Amino acid sequence: MGYDKTDELAINTIRTLAVDATFAANSGHPGAPMGMAPVAHVLFNKFMTFNPKNPGWANRDRFVLSNGHGCMLQYAILHMFGYGVSIDDLKHFRQVDSICPGHPEAHDTPGIEVTTGPLGQGFANAVGLACAQAHSAGVFNKPGFEMFTNHTYMFFGDGCAMEGIASEAASAAGHLQLGNLIAIYDDNHISIDGDTKCAFTEDVTMRFEAYGWHVQWVKDGDHDLQGIEDAIKKAKEVTDKPSMIRLTTTIGFGSKLQGTGGVHGNPLKEDDCKQVKEKFGFDPTKTFVVPQEVYDMYHKHASEGAAAEQEWDSLLEKYSSEHKDLGADLKRRLTRKLPEGWQEKLPVYKPSDKAIASRKLSESVLEAIYEAVPELLSGSADLTGSNNTRWKNAVDFQPPSLGIGEWSGRYFRYGVREHAMAAMMNGLAAYGTVIPAGGTFLNFVSYAAGAVRLSALSHQRVIYVATHDSIGLGEDGPTHQPIETLAHFRALPNFMVWRPADGNETSAAYYVALTSQNTPSLLALTRQNLPQLEGSTIANGIKGGYVALENKDAHITLVSTGSEVSLCLEAVKYLKDNHDVTARVVSLPCMEVFDAQDKEYRLKCIPDGIPALSVEVMSTLGWEKYSHEQFGLNRFGASGPYKDVYKKFEFTPEGISKRAVATIDFYKEVKPLRSPLQRAFLQLI
Amino acid sequence: MGYDKTDELAINTIRTLAVDATFAANSGHPGAPMGMAPVAHVLFNKFMTFNPKNPGWANRDRFVLSNGHGCMLQYAILHMFGYGVSIDDLKHFRQVDSICPGHPEAHDTPGIEVTTGPLGQGFANAVGLACAQAHSAGVFNKPGFEMFTNHTYMFFGDGCAMEGIASEAASAAGHLQLGNLIAIYDDNHISIDGDTKCAFTEDVTMRFEAYGWHVQWVKDGDHDLQGIEDAIKKAKEVTDKPSMIRLTTTIGFGSKLQGTGGVHGNPLKEDDCKQVKEKFGFDPTKTFVVPQEVYDMYHKHASEGAAAEQEWDSLLEKYSSEHKDLGADLKRRLTRKLPEGWQEKLPVYKPSDKAIASRKLSESVLEAIYEAVPELLSGSADLTGSNNTRWKNAVDFQPPSLGIGEWSGRYFRYGVREHAMAAMMNGLAAYGTVIPAGGTFLNFVSYAAGAVRLSALSHQRVIYVATHDSIGLGEDGPTHQPIETLAHFRALPNFMVWRPADGNETSAAYYVALTSQNTPSLLALTRQNLPQLEGSTIANGIKGGYVALENKDAHITLVSTGSEVSLCLEAVKYLKDNHDVTARVVSLPCMEVFDAQDKEYRLKCIPDGIPALSVEVMSTLGWEKYSHEQFGLNRFGASGPYKDVYKKFEFTPEGISKRAVATIDFYKEVKPLRSPLQRAFLQLI
Ligand SMILES: [Ca+2]
Ligand SMILES: [Ca+2]
Repeated sequence: MGYDKTDELAINTIRTLAVDATFAANSGHPGAPMGMAPVAHVLFNKFMTFNPKNPGWANRDRFVLSNGHGCMLQYAILHMFGYGVSIDDLKHFRQVDSICPGHPEAHDTPGIEVTTGPLGQGFANAVGLACAQAHSAGVFNKPGFEMFTNHTYMFFGDGCAMEGIASEAASAAGHLQLGNLIAIYDDNHISIDGDTKCAFTEDVTMRFEAYGWHVQWVKDGDHDLQGIEDAIKKAKEVTDKPSMIRLTTTIGFGSKLQGTGGVHGNPLKEDDCKQVKEKFGFDPTKTFVVPQEVYDMYHKHASEGAAAEQEWDSLLEKYSSEHKDLGADLKRRLTRKLPEGWQEKLPVYKPSDKAIASRKLSESVLEAIYEAVPELLSGSADLTGSNNTRWKNAVDFQPPSLGIGEWSGRYFRYGVREHAMAAMMNGLAAYGTVIPAGGTFLNFVSYAAGAVRLSALSHQRVIYVATHDSIGLGEDGPTHQPIETLAHFRALPNFMVWRPADGNETSAAYYVALTSQNTPSLLALTRQNLPQLEGSTIANGIKGGYVALENKDAHITLVSTGSEVSLCLEAVKYLKDNHDVTARVVSLPCMEVFDAQDKEYRLKCIPDGIPALSVEVMSTLGWEKYSHEQFGLNRFGASGPYKDVYKKFEFTPEGISKRAVATIDFYKEVKPLRSPLQRAFLQLI
Repeated sequence: MGYDKTDELAINTIRTLAVDATFAANSGHPGAPMGMAPVAHVLFNKFMTFNPKNPGWANRDRFVLSNGHGCMLQYAILHMFGYGVSIDDLKHFRQVDSICPGHPEAHDTPGIEVTTGPLGQGFANAVGLACAQAHSAGVFNKPGFEMFTNHTYMFFGDGCAMEGIASEAASAAGHLQLGNLIAIYDDNHISIDGDTKCAFTEDVTMRFEAYGWHVQWVKDGDHDLQGIEDAIKKAKEVTDKPSMIRLTTTIGFGSKLQGTGGVHGNPLKEDDCKQVKEKFGFDPTKTFVVPQEVYDMYHKHASEGAAAEQEWDSLLEKYSSEHKDLGADLKRRLTRKLPEGWQEKLPVYKPSDKAIASRKLSESVLEAIYEAVPELLSGSADLTGSNNTRWKNAVDFQPPSLGIGEWSGRYFRYGVREHAMAAMMNGLAAYGTVIPAGGTFLNFVSYAAGAVRLSALSHQRVIYVATHDSIGLGEDGPTHQPIETLAHFRALPNFMVWRPADGNETSAAYYVALTSQNTPSLLALTRQNLPQLEGSTIANGIKGGYVALENKDAHITLVSTGSEVSLCLEAVKYLKDNHDVTARVVSLPCMEVFDAQDKEYRLKCIPDGIPALSVEVMSTLGWEKYSHEQFGLNRFGASGPYKDVYKKFEFTPEGISKRAVATIDFYKEVKPLRSPLQRAFLQLI
């Protein structure tokens, strides 16, 4: 024990690297790395177990920097411990195609667990990572085989503390008694607007105690290494509560501007850089210096981590022979591949099967596959009965002491906390042993938009079960009826928006969602019943779009999704009977997946020569890509029984037919009439 | 004082009306109205001052039902006190075109202050309403003239308490010491998933104390009317803190299912309806009954409110003669019209003026007009220096005791609380005397999506100042660079998305935003400098789109916004020099406003006969409406100096030109080549 010069040197190396990198980039945030270098040093070197040569080791301790703007702290640490981050990478901090982007991105940089920067996200990710550990331990740990023992450590700042998402996640973590979660609050009294007294004067300690956290205060985070160590040790001893350590630090410690907002988001001036280095005993004329004794100390710790992993690997082998099924299951999960043959369990429907709401079809999928896919977790933001997210025999994920569930439980009661739910799911998925699905009304996925975006950006296999997907929810009215929501998420890169029309399409949506290892999905599901369609099969559905009703003499293609596909099929009859018009119907449950099909296939669906009319009972924005004309709802809905609401907005066979006829008329003279899929050039991907 | 049979009768009338209306609608939430009827009765009849004949009276007490699903409580009360809500309206609860929709909507129903239902929104709206009162009192109250004295009362439930937005708003309200705000927490231990013990076990009382609130607990909210009265009275006496009254109630009080989730979101069964009525001494065979003595009692209170308004009106007249300018200003503000001639102050630019970032152009607008438009408030979610939202002499809105501002201050330090900021702005706007503008990065407006949607739905004049609007923000990288954001908000009905290209367009954006009384606006503004354009004028800008560079022999129209317009103008030269192609340029700063121009004008901008290529450095979704081909960014951005990032994605004159040539080529043979503005039929509005 005890701290010596080398510790101090390591801490100051982190600081000077942050100073140099932000200066070189002429951009970035030196303040947080300089203030938090001491705690980072103590945490990584004295407490955390990890192997830089294998950042994916399943039982590594997790670290999350929720105040992600301080990422030079993390890049410096990763470099010094020997992760795949070179000094050259640090020199390219915040440059195009660098692995050290302006905020930490999990898929870019070895050793970064989750993508943070948007404030509060990392906080909730860490809660998710801690849930995943607790769950994995609950499932896999056996006497003599403590396969999952890791802790999740997380740093957060005043900004995170102010964000609602962190409040939600902190409340959830307290309820869940996550003793494996240790959060360190960088209490430096500075945010971008300056002193936090201008906006943030609450008692953070008391608030976390109210959530059920164990809270400590280290008053001199700049110097008191032993105090930091003692606090972390104490936090580890508390196993029935998450721990928060309030660490009072000086932002930009060492800078002339330390303790002020001036050092938060701007590099130090050149003379200040020099001054800092002199103060810390570094050569002011040199940059990006890491003293050998610091490397030595950190590499020694890293090699201990590598040894720990080796031990774990041996344990896993022994585990696999003593607990064959569990061992095989665990090994398989770590490959991220689903169990052989699981997809055989997906429900299949015939057109003669009865009409069912797609939220219930989704429930049937979960009921059918939950045994075959043990890594699948479900849950809801307090809408379980409405989202139909819970299979009958599900056990809740709860601390056993509450008497209402188990750590091994697979059903999450997220509470009315949509944003935290989404970010917790990102953390759950990032852990590597589970696939989280979580429900809310489609309209309230918007509450979680900040985290949904990060599911996509950070390539997490997360499933949003979004029921009550349109004005079809009826009486709850415009405050609950999505209009802009699908357009929003369709515009989000690396994100699949599914709106299945029936049972087979719902099964297809789950198939693609579960097998897409690097892309999150949203399933927009109806409250109201939907008939089983003639042309629908799982094989068709997984293409993202297909011809639901073909007619080679058609005058028009109706392109539609979800609840409106069966309406379009009714419109086909109406058109024939009343207008002598022949129409064909394409169901397009997932644009993103359809876009990935080859052009020949896509053009068979939406061909040249006849116009296409899209029919979807929400914003038409974006439908021009798949149709010449668009029938939708570019206004807010109405409260009433859903059939009345559909009628009010003319979403009836008659209303569709009227527009189909107008469309055919309008395009009669255009030659050549190309499919909207024909484009002059390819988009950048 | 004291409560008698009539009070009990009134309370049970509220309950039976809620039972009848939800039963008739076969949908809705009887539980909360039945549980909260006692407190609603005491509050409305003993404390609140209002005039049902003029729901818009400026100094009325405000009431917000944050748990908006309980709206039958509010509709029943409004009806019984004599607002413009008839028994017949109650009978049409949750029917199409009823003024009693499934959740309360401010613009639909007289007496509803703000649109709630999405949980937590009303909580933050109430904080905004209380801020508006404190500010209006700070500005207008003078010795002997207490023009603004009203309180804001708000009910919230467990769901609201779990939502991050309410946490953010509660923290802000505590900081702001809003003594005029009294929140009543319906502590009934039930949410949709059942007992709150499954997800919500924190100590809510302690949490609110941590925020700096005054907290009381009334343990028998079902019966203890005197206790409720005492608590509200006490809360009113505390003038330097917001008050929270934890009121333990029985959800669905009176029903066979009282105290369970079964009564939360479903009507009572027929026999239970009867049973309830019998229990309360009502005729079980009758529905929608309001005893005359209840009407009498409530109408008496209402007439006291009418008298109070009359008194206030007289006071206003006296005030107007003693404080001429303030009186005139107040009267004008209540008409919602801006001061005569204010728009003369808007900055005007010449092409020779220097290049300036549009976030700074926005700052110049605020600097230029803040004196002329005293009702304009500004603020930021802790990004003041980056959003450029603060004019130089601004005074902060703060409780004077903090020594860093005044109640009359016009600059809000929202803290890192985007969602609460947006919902507080909805409350500020709903108060009627101010116009709020608030800043954050465009990417983080998504954190506030739930509240932004309600700005639009509830017709609030709110301005979102959204800086750092694209990959042009550079080094902060993909976590901060909007891709899907504008598509999202363009798909939102009744919402103006502005992306000005230069100074005159920025002035135009503010002009339209400030003069649109019923539509919120978002201004997407750059971090990087933009040149002043040749064809740009305020008069052009306020049309939402105009020809920035005309050429009657053009082969192509380039349609663009914001920072890409000047790039397009460079591309015009490049096209001429390198491809002998002639191009014209249309700047389209606001699609929603452009759509409102007559067709002839719009077709002059984007004409028939030549193809149009859109150029905007984010999702192309929706651009098909204004162009034949789209150049955008349907992937996440990159961290680096912004010019390098633009280059990486080919957003250069050369990159644009390449696509322009491909577009011209592709459309050569199509006849007639119609403008994308030509449509087969009109959309529903
Ligand atoms: Ca801070
Ligand atoms: Ca409740």
